[in-house]
Amino acid sequence: MFEIIWTKAYFMNEKKGNMNNVPELSGEMGWSELKIPDSYGIGRAFITGDRSSDRIKVRYFKKDSDNSFVARVWFGPSTEGPPGHVHGGSMAAVLDEAMGASAWIAGHTVVAAKLAVKYRTMLPLGTVTTIEAWISSVKGKKVITKGKVFDETGTVYTESEGLFINIPSEIFGEMINHSDAL
Amino acid sequence: MFEIIWTKAYFMNEKKGNMNNVPELSGEMGWSELKIPDSYGIGRAFITGDRSSDRIKVRYFKKDSDNSFVARVWFGPSTEGPPGHVHGGSMAAVLDEAMGASAWIAGHTVVAAKLAVKYRTMLPLGTVTTIEAWISSVKGKKVITKGKVFDETGTVYTESEGLFINIPSEIFGEMINHSDAL
Repeated sequence: MFEIIWTKAYFMNEKKGNMNNVPELSGEMGWSELKIPDSYGIGRAFITGDRSSDRIKVRYFKKDSDNSFVARVWFGPSTEGPPGHVHGGSMAAVLDEAMGASAWIAGHTVVAAKLAVKYRTMLPLGTVTTIEAWISSVKGKKVITKGKVFDETGTVYTESEGLFINIPSEIFGEMINHSDAL
Repeated sequence: MFEIIWTKAYFMNEKKGNMNNVPELSGEMGWSELKIPDSYGIGRAFITGDRSSDRIKVRYFKKDSDNSFVARVWFGPSTEGPPGHVHGGSMAAVLDEAMGASAWIAGHTVVAAKLAVKYRTMLPLGTVTTIEAWISSVKGKKVITKGKVFDETGTVYTESEGLFINIPSEIFGEMINHSDAL
């Protein structure tokens, strides 16, 4: 039974070109691509350092018009939650990262303090989505951000809000030593 | 520079036995292990279907005393967010799943509608954590759940609340066909 379903899924996706041929995830006019390292420290970045070919593929951009963050993200067959659909936690993870990135590219050296995600409708596996994230407000060290996941038809699957805290940038260099101690 | 840091991390973890030798993640007295399939439909489950050896390893249990959900979770070197520390999004993903599981093992066939996560303190890469999740209240179709990530010293890293919606169980069988159409 499972093999039949899997074979069906394989050919379905093969036809659409999104199982073995991960979509190119192109940007748009007025988007500048952000080059993201595989690692920020001693490990490998959870989203951007993922080298599997069947989970999450991302390309990150900055909109030239307002310096906001935008990403093209493909949720592959290994992001399954509900049958045939993307695990809400995988979208939460990418939104967390996207909102954090929207603060970083605006010069705020932040870490996440709170994340809130609303799941509007379920996202089918293998969909190419666009994720936008932007700063909603800044109050002292608090940077409030928002984000959303939508597809080419404009359907919004998930919306999010994130509270990030500005900390001195040199702290990030000390984090590796801190983790060593544990 | 990166190579030096990586080598240092390698030996650090080798010594602790948590880089190449993923911890065993044992349960405790009064916990019954839950057997989770690799796939719930046509793909591979985002958390439990992950066969990489360096990202997230989980074992899921049910506490015999109150039927609540408890997991042992190791966040490996490929879950990095801040340098040397676990990506908040990876904890959000596991908490989303844990809270959903707490509803399912109580007989509620649910999908996630809202997720809220508070990051209390940063979690160093390679830490073995315990994740508890439980039903806080049920109001009609709404199942409110809570969860937390803590370590063996009792330090709480992350807390969460999730709103899940009860839907008829037969809908889950139809989800694959629904995703086919797209």
